[in-house]
Amino acid sequence: MEYDDYDRELGRLLDAAGIGPAADDVIELVLGVAAAPASSFPGAWMDLIALDLPDALRDHLSGRLDRARAILDDPRAPGDRSNRLARLREELRKRGLAGFIVPRTDEHRGEYVPPSAERLAWLTGFTGSAGVAVVLLDRAALFVDGRYTLQARAEVATEAYEVLSLTDTPPETWIAGSLAESARAVGGRSDQADPSLGYDPWLHAPDEIARLAKSCEKAGGRALPLQNNPLDAVWLHRPPPPITPVLPHVFGRTSEEKRAEVAKILASDGQDVAVLSTPESIAWLLDIRGSDVPNTPVSLAFATITRDGDVKLYIDLRKLTPEARAHFQEAGAVTVLEVCRLDTDLGGLGQDHKRVRIDPASTPIWILDRLDKEGALVSTGPDPCLLPKAKKSSEELEGIRAAHRRDGVALARFLAWLAREAPKGEVSELAAARRIEALRAENPEFRGNSFETISGAGSNGAIVHYRVSEATDRKLGPGMLYLVDSGGQYPDGTTDVTRTIAIGAPTDEMRRRFTYVLKGHIAIASACFPQDTTGSQLDVLARRALWQAGLDYDHGTGHGVGSYLAVHEGPHRISKLPSTVKLEPGMVVSNEPGFYKEGAYGIRIENLIAVTPAEKPVADAERAMMGFETLTLAPIDRALIDLDLLDPGERAWLDTYHARVLEEIGPELDEAGRVWLKSATAPL
Amino acid sequence: MEYDDYDRELGRLLDAAGIGPAADDVIELVLGVAAAPASSFPGAWMDLIALDLPDALRDHLSGRLDRARAILDDPRAPGDRSNRLARLREELRKRGLAGFIVPRTDEHRGEYVPPSAERLAWLTGFTGSAGVAVVLLDRAALFVDGRYTLQARAEVATEAYEVLSLTDTPPETWIAGSLAESARAVGGRSDQADPSLGYDPWLHAPDEIARLAKSCEKAGGRALPLQNNPLDAVWLHRPPPPITPVLPHVFGRTSEEKRAEVAKILASDGQDVAVLSTPESIAWLLDIRGSDVPNTPVSLAFATITRDGDVKLYIDLRKLTPEARAHFQEAGAVTVLEVCRLDTDLGGLGQDHKRVRIDPASTPIWILDRLDKEGALVSTGPDPCLLPKAKKSSEELEGIRAAHRRDGVALARFLAWLAREAPKGEVSELAAARRIEALRAENPEFRGNSFETISGAGSNGAIVHYRVSEATDRKLGPGMLYLVDSGGQYPDGTTDVTRTIAIGAPTDEMRRRFTYVLKGHIAIASACFPQDTTGSQLDVLARRALWQAGLDYDHGTGHGVGSYLAVHEGPHRISKLPSTVKLEPGMVVSNEPGFYKEGAYGIRIENLIAVTPAEKPVADAERAMMGFETLTLAPIDRALIDLDLLDPGERAWLDTYHARVLEEIGPELDEAGRVWLKSATAPL
Repeated sequence: MEYDDYDRELGRLLDAAGIGPAADDVIELVLGVAAAPASSFPGAWMDLIALDLPDALRDHLSGRLDRARAILDDPRAPGDRSNRLARLREELRKRGLAGFIVPRTDEHRGEYVPPSAERLAWLTGFTGSAGVAVVLLDRAALFVDGRYTLQARAEVATEAYEVLSLTDTPPETWIAGSLAESARAVGGRSDQADPSLGYDPWLHAPDEIARLAKSCEKAGGRALPLQNNPLDAVWLHRPPPPITPVLPHVFGRTSEEKRAEVAKILASDGQDVAVLSTPESIAWLLDIRGSDVPNTPVSLAFATITRDGDVKLYIDLRKLTPEARAHFQEAGAVTVLEVCRLDTDLGGLGQDHKRVRIDPASTPIWILDRLDKEGALVSTGPDPCLLPKAKKSSEELEGIRAAHRRDGVALARFLAWLAREAPKGEVSELAAARRIEALRAENPEFRGNSFETISGAGSNGAIVHYRVSEATDRKLGPGMLYLVDSGGQYPDGTTDVTRTIAIGAPTDEMRRRFTYVLKGHIAIASACFPQDTTGSQLDVLARRALWQAGLDYDHGTGHGVGSYLAVHEGPHRISKLPSTVKLEPGMVVSNEPGFYKEGAYGIRIENLIAVTPAEKPVADAERAMMGFETLTLAPIDRALIDLDLLDPGERAWLDTYHARVLEEIGPELDEAGRVWLKSATAPL
Repeated sequence: MEYDDYDRELGRLLDAAGIGPAADDVIELVLGVAAAPASSFPGAWMDLIALDLPDALRDHLSGRLDRARAILDDPRAPGDRSNRLARLREELRKRGLAGFIVPRTDEHRGEYVPPSAERLAWLTGFTGSAGVAVVLLDRAALFVDGRYTLQARAEVATEAYEVLSLTDTPPETWIAGSLAESARAVGGRSDQADPSLGYDPWLHAPDEIARLAKSCEKAGGRALPLQNNPLDAVWLHRPPPPITPVLPHVFGRTSEEKRAEVAKILASDGQDVAVLSTPESIAWLLDIRGSDVPNTPVSLAFATITRDGDVKLYIDLRKLTPEARAHFQEAGAVTVLEVCRLDTDLGGLGQDHKRVRIDPASTPIWILDRLDKEGALVSTGPDPCLLPKAKKSSEELEGIRAAHRRDGVALARFLAWLAREAPKGEVSELAAARRIEALRAENPEFRGNSFETISGAGSNGAIVHYRVSEATDRKLGPGMLYLVDSGGQYPDGTTDVTRTIAIGAPTDEMRRRFTYVLKGHIAIASACFPQDTTGSQLDVLARRALWQAGLDYDHGTGHGVGSYLAVHEGPHRISKLPSTVKLEPGMVVSNEPGFYKEGAYGIRIENLIAVTPAEKPVADAERAMMGFETLTLAPIDRALIDLDLLDPGERAWLDTYHARVLEEIGPELDEAGRVWLKSATAPL
């Protein structure tokens, strides 16, 4: 059918159903839905047109969505990107710019961005979840962290981009050294006293720009905010922003309680209003979820909250289901507005000289500049939702435990399957990843992965954030270690678990090093610490056994985890990096030490743990201490343990943990599964 | 003899000796010397008048110094201080101020200040080494840290001063709550829209004032820098600033090398000149020592250093011996000027728009304001001497090892004496402190204590920074723990050591808790860690065993230690507090976990340790690791160890350490001492 006929058919079907929206609006809506991840409830988005559509219309819309998906340009698809870089440089030259900075982040700084914001992947081909490119007229560099260096070198054209380590040569250092040199080398308009490095003020936070401006100054240049993103200007067939239904999600504390808590923080810090730009904060605060981006169930939006708890939500109104509208109406103190209203409302806050709080680490500097220019008294402070969101209530923790039992059943079934099938040598990384996802999906509560499954055998396991593809897929074979890191979203909780499994007989070296990692894992799990302790203080416990053997791992030990939200959330973490954020009861964090031998194998043991309230650990104690409750329930491969390296306390910890796994998961398995689990959790 | 006659006699003696300085100048000089600590070389200061004075004149000067010392008002002496507080408030009222802040620090922020800067002690009676008072018109508060709360409550008039914890209720919080309320309660001139809290800009660093200003704003007031210190205005008989000879001290790296190193830091950070206000930095940089304050062998001064390595030293020129003048002349690039020249020279830097580096944590804000006002481009960064000073050269480390062997001999003799005498029940804390000081002083290289000896028996040992006095002195008796923390200054190194000794039979609880502390001490001493590790990361190793038993200690685990300089030096430390300063080879730091049972006993085990270069710890290692070399050589009381709580690695560490103590110290002792040391260091 021709496009025109097809569109006319939609008009006819809408008319027949007596439905309001014009065909053009519906066509736009479908494009937005196509630019979002596929939903667990495939037809749910149709409610955004009207409830109870006739079947003929639903069928048409389904077909239309499939078509839209098929023609959507995937900015992450591999291919020759040299003309993209050339077109961007041409655009920069036209504007008299010496360069432009292209971050992975979008306006909302989530780990996952919609296709419309995949600028870094579109330009460079790099598909990792963190990185930044700096494009100058005669040279360009891509900066990624330790977990992505191998992947980046494989994905980008290294003759066009120097691939550098974010920590060893941060962009600031490279810019300080390269900006002036490049401008001189290139000559022309930008060969001036102050070569300008452009940036998109929607895509950078004030903290970043402060560093960027400093490095530009060092190079005798300057950092220049641009009204229009020059990359967007040359990006043909850029996907539209995603559209998915906003759904109410009331669980644990009510939105009213949460708004009061945040309002109290603002009042005590002497602020009138906070601007929120992080969708997880908004989802948590307003008891809503969406599916605009993969893996994190949020709707992209902005919001403000006053010290009285009044909220304005700035969002694409087409995303609102009737249910969501009713939810906000009920909440009373929430006003829903189109995103374009944010501009004028920020101006109003400025003209009223309001004391406005923004998070300098995450708010787009565009917002800060707008407030500043209009006369607001801007003060910086962490997003006021961060800390209360991180401290899960007892009801939320109950949900998280239930989600982990459910997840544990899928994991046990997967591990039993793996134990049976992998030795035959026919299981591939991709097949294993699909298997674990399918087993999770058998549970009706499953709402999707919480991140892309990492399924790496042998040397692929040594790539910390390995993502298996047809190109890299390999069979699990004897003598290999297999590392699988995966997680699910459930309405009552988010999971994230890593297990390392020996396929066939492991070497002594593998067992020794697995045991060092296990000792670190146990040291964190059984840690006992006073109030006011930070995750930075505890980090060394996870590394000590490795360090003594001259080994280490180049990633953090633990990240915060949301409750049916982002699998990586702040403000707490367990890491080498200094932090002033204290661990508080109810915080959920991962415990995931590892070891990676490049080109050989990877080891990681990851459970989620929750901070438990302070109590005296022994009768003799003088102070109450906090600790951790392990949430994840899955056996740890006993074949990989070198018993001689465990002390009696460590053995006891593992035996107790395994007994608990058997007790909680065993009854949910079939007979064969139970038999396998019993042997997998037998005392050491 | 009448004063006039006495002064005329001095004139006659000077004339007779044909010596230039007028009697009036010499009288002033003597007052300055009297206001400095007594020197290990009593007559050395007379060289400041002229070399080789006739005996009659020397005798006169000695007598004159004794007299001056006797009449010098001791600002730390106990007594009723209510009229001092009243006079200060009267002065504040006259100036229309709502309050004034009185810190312990002076312009140079050393741990020790001369009598002329003992403002906090003079006003409040509090003699601890850290604290700050805020005096409002109707209320006042003294803020001290955990180690000083008991002492502060005993020393100050608690009806006049609320004694608060620096960490629980920092002055900023108290001011935010009290300033406006106090101004309202008092009424009068300061009952205005913005009550002013005055501060002396010489006594506060920019970082402090930023916090102070914020809290004043919160209270609707402001922080106001004062040209003249109102406390000084009402301080009758304030001692003059100290005068002691400046002596060249060339050891380890030369001043030229050090100046080149600092100049390189300035050049790479894009700065023209740094202002130095810390006497330890200046002493290190210029290879000089003095004795203006107790325990830290420095001369109070300011300096600037340019990116070319040129230094200007601002100092009371009366302190310069002919030897020191020759030393600076030889150095070439060092210009010596009167302190009053600093003002004009800072103005000059401003007018030339120089890029000037100051340390925002230690430079008086007066200096920053002066530079700012005159147009300098001030950039903040740590004192550029801090890091190179902390990284001891191999020659400095050799000196430090020699100083520790020397110190270890005195310690072994002391501990042997204690083992013999204390059980008789007649040794007092004061007598023990005098004994260890006397034993150190027997070595001709001894240059004085590196801090005031802490000598606490029983419950006095639980006061972390206990300073024994006639009033608190008690006998060491059976069943007590005795804690002694002391250190010496030697030309090749500075020592600091704590031992806890059981007098008679300790209880099981004491042994258990001593062993937890020992486990922490060993965990630090034997730590193995990669490059780029901070002391904050390692801190938990010292606490883990205590935490597991529900115990902790409220002080840091380790502080940096100078080389014949301050016993507490930065920038590194081992502490719960976040830090970005990496441990680097050559850094010396203390390892001093403890446990304190209030009202009962105190335990601390302290050795100094040096960071060792990275090497692979085992054959199998993939990375080079750093560690520590223990410098202190003294037995750890075996009677206090609960062997069941030590694992085999910990026992081996202690046996190896004790064998080394016996081997290095034993040969320096007499027969009886050797016999005692052999049993004190016998394998467990």
